[in-house]
Formats: sequence, C-alpha cells, structure tokens
Amino acid sequence: MSNLTKWLEDKLLALNVTDTMARPDGFTRLSFTKEEKAAHIQFEQIAAELGLKTYQDQAGNCWAVWEVDPSASTIAMGSHLDTVDCGGGYDGVAGVLTALTAVKGLQDIGFHPIKNIAVICFIAEESARFGVSTIGSKAITGQLKLKEMEAIKDRNGIKMKQAMTDYGLDWESIEAAVLSLDSLESFIELHIEQGMELQETGAEIGIVKGIACPVRLVITAKGMANHTGTTRMHQRQDAFVAIAPLVNFVQEEALKVNEKSEVPLVATVSTIRLHPNAMNVIPGEVELGIDIRSVDDRLKRDFAENIRTFVSELEVKKQIRIGVKTLVDNDSVKMDNIMHAKLTQASKTIGYETLSMNSGAGHDVMNMAANWPAGLIFIPCKDGLSHHPREFASIESLEKGTKVMMTFLQQEAGEPI
Amino acid sequence: MSNLTKWLEDKLLALNVTDTMARPDGFTRLSFTKEEKAAHIQFEQIAAELGLKTYQDQAGNCWAVWEVDPSASTIAMGSHLDTVDCGGGYDGVAGVLTALTAVKGLQDIGFHPIKNIAVICFIAEESARFGVSTIGSKAITGQLKLKEMEAIKDRNGIKMKQAMTDYGLDWESIEAAVLSLDSLESFIELHIEQGMELQETGAEIGIVKGIACPVRLVITAKGMANHTGTTRMHQRQDAFVAIAPLVNFVQEEALKVNEKSEVPLVATVSTIRLHPNAMNVIPGEVELGIDIRSVDDRLKRDFAENIRTFVSELEVKKQIRIGVKTLVDNDSVKMDNIMHAKLTQASKTIGYETLSMNSGAGHDVMNMAANWPAGLIFIPCKDGLSHHPREFASIESLEKGTKVMMTFLQQEAGEPI
Repeated sequence: MSNLTKWLEDKLLALNVTDTMARPDGFTRLSFTKEEKAAHIQFEQIAAELGLKTYQDQAGNCWAVWEVDPSASTIAMGSHLDTVDCGGGYDGVAGVLTALTAVKGLQDIGFHPIKNIAVICFIAEESARFGVSTIGSKAITGQLKLKEMEAIKDRNGIKMKQAMTDYGLDWESIEAAVLSLDSLESFIELHIEQGMELQETGAEIGIVKGIACPVRLVITAKGMANHTGTTRMHQRQDAFVAIAPLVNFVQEEALKVNEKSEVPLVATVSTIRLHPNAMNVIPGEVELGIDIRSVDDRLKRDFAENIRTFVSELEVKKQIRIGVKTLVDNDSVKMDNIMHAKLTQASKTIGYETLSMNSGAGHDVMNMAANWPAGLIFIPCKDGLSHHPREFASIESLEKGTKVMMTFLQQEAGEPI
Repeated sequence: MSNLTKWLEDKLLALNVTDTMARPDGFTRLSFTKEEKAAHIQFEQIAAELGLKTYQDQAGNCWAVWEVDPSASTIAMGSHLDTVDCGGGYDGVAGVLTALTAVKGLQDIGFHPIKNIAVICFIAEESARFGVSTIGSKAITGQLKLKEMEAIKDRNGIKMKQAMTDYGLDWESIEAAVLSLDSLESFIELHIEQGMELQETGAEIGIVKGIACPVRLVITAKGMANHTGTTRMHQRQDAFVAIAPLVNFVQEEALKVNEKSEVPLVATVSTIRLHPNAMNVIPGEVELGIDIRSVDDRLKRDFAENIRTFVSELEVKKQIRIGVKTLVDNDSVKMDNIMHAKLTQASKTIGYETLSMNSGAGHDVMNMAANWPAGLIFIPCKDGLSHHPREFASIESLEKGTKVMMTFLQQEAGEPI
C-alpha cells in the first residue's frame, strides 16, 4: 500500500496549504477566512483528481461525490479543514484526508460501489473565531440557529453575518443547506483522538461510543474600578482578587471528582476578560469562561452546581456581585450501536488493536448522529497534544484509519455476495 | 465669588465636550484621538475668551499665555484633558480648568502680574492607549524616548508614530518641544486626589510632598495549550491554574505590609493576557501585569522581590516555566520643599484645612519637577473614586483649589510690596 503512503503524505501537505508540517506557529485557518477557503480549494482539486463531482452547498460545506447512481443511497464521510489559532495540521484534516484516501484506495483496487460515496468537508467546525462550533454540520442537519448568530462578533468586531457574506455565502439561503433524512444512509468521521488513551493502551484504532458535550458557564464578577496608585488595599473592591480562587477550585475539585468516579470529568477555566485591563486601574469587572465535560451528564451538571455554590460563598465572603450564566448545556451524544459494531468489526478484521472509548471533544459527527446512523473512528496523536503547533499523527496511523474506512465501505457499498 | 462658580460649572462642561457630567459610560478621550483634540480646541477657545495667546507646541501640548513681558520669567500651571476608557470628567480636567479659572479670577480683580503666566494643557497623560504615560510633559522636559516609542501599538494595532502623525504632529519635530531651563520659573498642578485621605481627614486642600512612582512587573507563565475536552486533569500543564494563586498573594501580602509599615504600599494585578483564550483550549500561556506603589522606594522594591520569590516557588511546585520582567522601576519623586511651603501657606492664609500628603498616582508635575521647582495641589474627590464614570469633585472644591492658585500667583507674580 505504499502508493497510499505517498498520497497521504502529499495530500496532508496540500490540504494544509503548506510544504512542511513542521511549522513553529502551526496552522491558523479560522472559520470563514480566506485561509479556510484556500484549504477548501485544495480539497476540490484533490476530489477532481479522483474524478469526484464537487460542489459547495449553501452553508459553505464542500462536497465531493463518487456518484454511481443518483437513485441509490449515499454513504457519507468527512470532517473539517478550519483550525484554532496556531493549531495543528491534523485536527479535522485527518478526517477529510482519510475519507478522500479511502476513495482513492477503493478506486486503486478496482472497487465498484453500488451506492454513492460522499466526502464532506464541513465548514467552520472550530469555535475559535465566533464561539460557535460545527456550523457546517449544524446547517446540514437543521440545527443552525441563524437568527441568534447574526450579531455574534469575532475579536475584531466583525459580525458572523458579515464574515459569511464575505466568504461568498448568501445569508438568506444558508438554512436551505439542510438535507432531507433520505439524502444519506449513514455517516462516519475519522478524527485524531486529542487524548492519550490510545497511546497509553497501545491501541491502533479507537471506535467511539459517546461524545461528552460540554456544560459551559460564564462567571461575571463586578467590583469597582479605581486607580491602582491611590486606592488603599483595604478600600478596594477588586473583581479579579475576588474571583481568582475559582481558577484553582475548578482544577482541584475536578481532580477530586476523578478520584471517586470511574467516568472521567474535565473542567477548565479557559477564558478571561478583564475590564478595563489597564496597568493603573484596579480590575472592576472580570468574566471567566468555564468548560466542563463528561459523558456522564449528571457528573458534569453536579460539577456546575458545585461551582455555583462556591461562587455564592465567594460573593458573600468578598462582598462582590458574581453572576453565573449557562452558555451551553447539552446532553452527551451516543454513537449508533450498529455503526459502532460495524466499525469495530472492520478494524478487527484487518487485525488492528481496537479500543472502544469515549470522546472528550465534540465533532461534526455529533450533529450528523441526530439524523443518521453515525460512527466515529479515532487514530492516536502524539502525547494527546492537539490545538497546538506540535499536534502530530503518523502517516502510518492515517493509513490504518483509511483501511478501516475502506473495509467499512466495501461491506456497506459493495455488491451483495 | 459667584461669577467664578458659574464659570467653573460652564467650563467644566466645555472642557469635557459635554452638556452633562452625569454620563453612565463616563468620558473616553484616549491619547492622540479626535476626542482629545476636541477637548484641546475647547481649551483654546476658553483661553481666547480670556485674551491669552494660544499655540500648540511640537509635541501637541496646548499653551495659553498671559504674556505681560517677553523678557520676564514665566510661572506655569496645568494638567491634561485625555482620559482612560470610560473615565471621569475631573482627572486632568480639574487642573486645566482651575488654572484657566485662576487667570480669570485674577483678571476679574484687576490683578496686573509682573511675570508671564502660562497654562499648559499637556497631551497624552494617561497610559491607557499605549501603555506610556505623561508624553506631553516628558516632551517638554526632554525625557521622551521617542525611538523606543515608535513601534508601540494600541489595541487596534495602530503604532504610536502613526497616531501622533494622524493627530497632526510631525514625528521628526516632536523632540524640539523640549524647553530650556530658563523658559519657566516654576510649575504647579492641581489634581483630584483620587484617594480618600482628604475625605477621611476632612481637609479641604492637600499639598503634596512626594509622588509614588510604580514598580511594574510582567509575569509570564508558560504551560501547554491542549484540548479542554480530551486532556485529563492530571495530564495538564494549565498556565492559568499555575499562576492564579499569585493574584491573591499580591493582595494578601500588600495588606500585611500595610499592617506593619507607616508608609502605605499598594499592589495590584491589573492586567492579564491569556493565550489562546478560547473556550475549548487549556490556557497555554498567561501574562499578568502587576503595579506596585509606595513613596518608600525600598518598600516597593522589597515587595517586588517577594513576588519573585513566590513565583519561583510556584515554578517548582507547578512545574511550569514562569518569567518575571521589570517593565518600570522609577524612584519616587519629591516635590520642591519651598513650593510645598508656599502652597501650604497660600492655602492656610485663606483659611482652608490643609493636609500635607503623598500621592499614589503619577502626574505631569513629576516630569516638570525634574527641571523646575514644582508643586502639586490636591482637592478631594468623592469616595476616592477615579478612572470611573462616577468620579466626582464638587464645584466648591474646584473653587477652593482655584483660590489657592490665585493666592500663590498674587504672591509670586505680583508687584513687590
């Protein structure tokens, strides 16, 4: 299979619009930017090489279809090409690359599918730019709340509507990207694990059972801005001093929960906005963003409740108003049992050490799973590092993932024996 | 003196370019913006009403001179009209307003000075936009390091050179604003206290002995950015979790120092930059800005040393690299003893309860004091609140401040008896 190795190496670079994967600042392709567009253009070119029919839907997702019979059903695969700031070249890319490579591999061995096979390159999966994730797959599955999104701004004050329009989309038509349930038969996504379970257990392939969706809280502490030089220590209402203990509380409480619980939980104070954030002004207002995840929904909600209790105590103790807002609270998503079994079987048939596991991160497949039987394949990534310039998955792992997808497609879209 | 009361009320609004002082969002006139320019234009108009000669120097400071004899010496007064974001309408304005009003008051009583009297409206006193303070008075006194400032950017990426050029200044000529030592005889500034000592002691006027200049540190903690959903709690190198205890350490240590020391010290973690500051990424890098002030230079330097020690301990304990950089470390500035005595006498002569005190905040007078005998008059501001929309000083206090300045000028620039 050395022709696939070379192809994977080449197309990994192409989809990342780069000539080397060793980039100190990693890759920055934020949603609806010209950088994301440039990657989509690479996707279309590779698809064209494979003789696939390509088009962009109303939401900006790129499709490449190996169409054998318009009246036959369609099996879809895919992931995304956008990244966070200074992210890695595998998160998202791995899924798009292996889907295209699976098609290439099947063509190379002369496979003739009896169903259509589609590769979807979802737009705007990462929440890095607008705080909203998986926009493309939400659009396809009718889960997009476009009205609520219209006014959301990025860090430069650009509204999402403007960004999508600038990308070449017609705001009024975006919701028309939604697919009827009979458009697809099933969907699979391959993704780098972004964790250390595969590496630690030595498994080569992970087949995901459930995806932990986050509870996200925004905590706002309001003190009193004042001059740092003239306001005595005992006369202050410093919002940062008041709320800072929460950062360590979240870390320590999460460690405690994991000592007791078999199902893991993670919790992070990942964002802060300090007002006015000036050297000579006491922080008058602080906003913290907290991300809490576990496939055990009760565990994560109890944790959020713990935070609320701690914050109420801080409010009394520090004499500062603190508000808690729930930004996101979704149930965890279970992958389809039958798809899980089929993918596990495909992986084991080839002889790969296969692990049934959960995902701590959300992916486009979450949205797809609401409408179609869906499966998620994990490949290892070095030291679990992701959203980071040193994110890394080996070509060997990408090839193994590709083979699982090929085997699955042969079973699902092959001539009945 | 009711004509001065009305004048103060009117010109307070004029210099703030507003028709009401009750503005929920306060005043935002950042350095070198059209908002600062608009206030300077008001200054020139009021000065013209008083028949003063006005001009803008090469650095953008506005001058209004009651010129009686070009060969006579000049006594100067002044402050600034720029503000922080959402600041108050008295910080800076009070000094410019009372200086103009002192001239008006002297004209009204038919006073004929034998020396020239200048009112200076300094440009860009606040560090809110570029992190550099008192640019105008630094220019006049030859303390401006223009080369170092050229590339400093504001939050919108605009370089200081660009901002000054857009303001109408000629970059190459700015340093020519420096004055020879014989240009002025002395300088006084009036400012709101921005603290609570006058209010607490019931004093009507404060005469400042020394100004506490800050030690400013930047602390950088470098952990490892990673996905919040997939990185187990015990596998993390969260830079925010590592450095957060410093926020409360600074507050608690400063409280302790004040219990032991007669000279007060203030210390504040006032800025933060979290990278990447995204909901789904563990903070990989955190930068904290700390502002430490005391007129006792040893006290503030010992405090900075304490922070270094604590941070070294954190580094070992949390296994995260933490760097400490000294951004600013200037000696405190002593006001001229003779000027202090003269202003104190002027205030007591009128019968005001007068307090000899220190300033926790820096002002343009710090720079002026390096070249000329200089004095600083404080008037009370409500609850010490400053850099805040609810900053407030009464017209009565402004009038008392004006009278102190008038008395001083009568003594210094009157006909010898």
